[in-house]
Amino acid sequence: MGKSRICIGLLGFGTVGSAFVDLLESQKSTIFLRTGLELVVTHVAVNDLSKDRSGLDAQTLLTDKPSEVIENTEVDLVVELMGGLLPAKDLVEAALENNKPVITANKELLSKEGKYLFSLADAREVDLLFEAAVAGGIPLIRVLRESLLGEPVEKVMGIVNGTTNYILSQMEDKSMPYSEALLEAQKLGYAESDPTADVSGQDAASKAAIIAMVTFGADVSLDDVLFEGIENISSADVAFAKRSEWAIKLLAVVSKHENELEVQVYPAMLPNTHPLSSVGDSFNAVFVEGAAVDSLMLFGRGAGGMPTASAVLGDVIDAAVNLSKNTFRGMGDLKETSLIQGDEQKSAYYVCVQVADEPGVLATVASVFAKNDISIQTMEQEGMDKEARLVFITHEIEASGLEVALTQLSSLSCVEKLGTVIRVLEA
Amino acid sequence: MGKSRICIGLLGFGTVGSAFVDLLESQKSTIFLRTGLELVVTHVAVNDLSKDRSGLDAQTLLTDKPSEVIENTEVDLVVELMGGLLPAKDLVEAALENNKPVITANKELLSKEGKYLFSLADAREVDLLFEAAVAGGIPLIRVLRESLLGEPVEKVMGIVNGTTNYILSQMEDKSMPYSEALLEAQKLGYAESDPTADVSGQDAASKAAIIAMVTFGADVSLDDVLFEGIENISSADVAFAKRSEWAIKLLAVVSKHENELEVQVYPAMLPNTHPLSSVGDSFNAVFVEGAAVDSLMLFGRGAGGMPTASAVLGDVIDAAVNLSKNTFRGMGDLKETSLIQGDEQKSAYYVCVQVADEPGVLATVASVFAKNDISIQTMEQEGMDKEARLVFITHEIEASGLEVALTQLSSLSCVEKLGTVIRVLEA
Repeated sequence: MGKSRICIGLLGFGTVGSAFVDLLESQKSTIFLRTGLELVVTHVAVNDLSKDRSGLDAQTLLTDKPSEVIENTEVDLVVELMGGLLPAKDLVEAALENNKPVITANKELLSKEGKYLFSLADAREVDLLFEAAVAGGIPLIRVLRESLLGEPVEKVMGIVNGTTNYILSQMEDKSMPYSEALLEAQKLGYAESDPTADVSGQDAASKAAIIAMVTFGADVSLDDVLFEGIENISSADVAFAKRSEWAIKLLAVVSKHENELEVQVYPAMLPNTHPLSSVGDSFNAVFVEGAAVDSLMLFGRGAGGMPTASAVLGDVIDAAVNLSKNTFRGMGDLKETSLIQGDEQKSAYYVCVQVADEPGVLATVASVFAKNDISIQTMEQEGMDKEARLVFITHEIEASGLEVALTQLSSLSCVEKLGTVIRVLEA
Repeated sequence: MGKSRICIGLLGFGTVGSAFVDLLESQKSTIFLRTGLELVVTHVAVNDLSKDRSGLDAQTLLTDKPSEVIENTEVDLVVELMGGLLPAKDLVEAALENNKPVITANKELLSKEGKYLFSLADAREVDLLFEAAVAGGIPLIRVLRESLLGEPVEKVMGIVNGTTNYILSQMEDKSMPYSEALLEAQKLGYAESDPTADVSGQDAASKAAIIAMVTFGADVSLDDVLFEGIENISSADVAFAKRSEWAIKLLAVVSKHENELEVQVYPAMLPNTHPLSSVGDSFNAVFVEGAAVDSLMLFGRGAGGMPTASAVLGDVIDAAVNLSKNTFRGMGDLKETSLIQGDEQKSAYYVCVQVADEPGVLATVASVFAKNDISIQTMEQEGMDKEARLVFITHEIEASGLEVALTQLSSLSCVEKLGTVIRVLEA
């Protein structure tokens, strides 16, 4: 048995950092009772030393030099809540090289430098834990990494970005246009003033890369992940989905096809019978399919100070217990994995085409699909003054074939505009 | 680093046992790749040596004396899948005393002897893991025990019995009477020929006791858990719930009220907006509320050979990794906890009373409620030939007060029969 007092060095004291300190303070005695360990935040690195930090214990040492926290021999364990690639990478690297376990909520860091940092942690025989980096308070990482380590997982598909789920839910529930729903998300603090990382799907793509590493031990980084966002989804698309008893959700999809992995982020229409379709507001949820376990779903708060702090604390306790027992849980080597490219993937699609409302237009458009061997499940025409909106739901086709058809459609004189193209998933 | 080949002794080779052997066989190489460990089932104790066991490796030693498996020095780790209190208790005890980690799916054993066995495992510094004992393939135990160890959990409320959920779902979806739905569950193998343990709520009560131990470190055993079943729920109750946009679910509820715990099992009407209300078929789902993490839900297969085997395998890998690192994860001492008695609990209730269809009856019945200070939210009267069915939804009241009123009602001459009394929960 090692030491029973574990000193925590905290990098970053924003929303999550201060929630973490509050939560740990309130739970100290319970944690001691259950683990025999006393957890104390002894050092905190902040950006601005002049700000009021009355939430912190008077004993806690504040510094604006994070390297001092990492190098301090008193600090047993480092919690990184700064976010962003740099200087977080250098600090996490230095902490691990000092044989200190690291807990991080930094999805960007792990999706870009995960492979290197995991192997460093394994080599130093210390923990590098990151529950809070994906789906906030939902204990997805532990479940994938530990509970399902022996499970033949086939697919992990989830709503892992709360901002876009809030926007899509508002568009659906209140028939709001995208721009208005985005504005409301910004007002509520769900979306940043520059919302690009969220609405483009990039944030979800980081999480998809991490899910692929954890679930399949695959060497996947953010650069490998194809992603589409929700910026082009219109009220008409959402209204159509609603009439069809579908919901549009931004999905991170990691699935196994023989020896290849699909790792993608895209909006999709899901039937209302699918458990993910009813996940509203800013909630996150992740659906796992495995050959043995069948279907599994985890649902909860994907963001917010307290839920994220809860995930951080779970990891901190885990690392502290391991430290006291002189052990750690490694990630193992991530192995090179071949990835399926987007255009090899089969799916049914929703395709919307705006055309001039003239005789013969439907036949012209339909013949483009026919020439490209794209068979149509259903078609709907909606008149709008002198234009019409044609909506097609295709049967399962390859994305590459659809690309060709769309290029041909856009060159037709009767086609005013190509609207949204969205995957349609079965239950 | 300890040994890298872990020999598993298996007690019981029924549905789950054989699924476990198959699953392990198919996942061997992945597990080796991820952990560096070779897991082998070397010894299996069965009831009947004359049965065909062609699914087993020719190297595996079969015996009908489970004690031989436990005492064998070659066996590193014991998996107990026999079920029932005896001889499982003696065997698990002996395995732990031989310093062998134990994985069990035995809810009855743990809900009755958990405290003793956990302290024995802790004293011997070996793992006693039991993911499969509650909610089958859903990784609830690991989430409660590890991820949420630092979380101020307020309530765990779940559908943890697949048989009763199947029966209630059939009654709701197909307007089947209870007896017919039970018969169908038996035909499909969801219910035993003697279904008492499931339909009485006792099976769920075992799981509630285990949830209380794991979540709150509380010394709770099956004997402490008040439970009600679904035997008395009628088609009329289900139809009423459906009209009111509620669903009737059998819930295991473990919740904290200051320093007291409520640990109970009862059927309840849940609004359709509650995430548990849409959990159909034989699925299980558990809803967790915590002050930091907010709401969390886990959903999946609560029973069946393969989903249960998946949970067992997750634990086996965990214990094997710990064994190879010469460590274990203890439960800590379970502490005495005062439990709330059922009649101290406040709830709204659905109360159904069958009365003679005569003038003045409603006033008589209503006056009994009034005298007992029970205020009514809504009332519905349904005529049935010469009788009428009065359905009341009360405001929040204490169970003890309702008991008194029900006794008085049953002594009224106009009351033909007291129907079902079911809690009504808010969203």
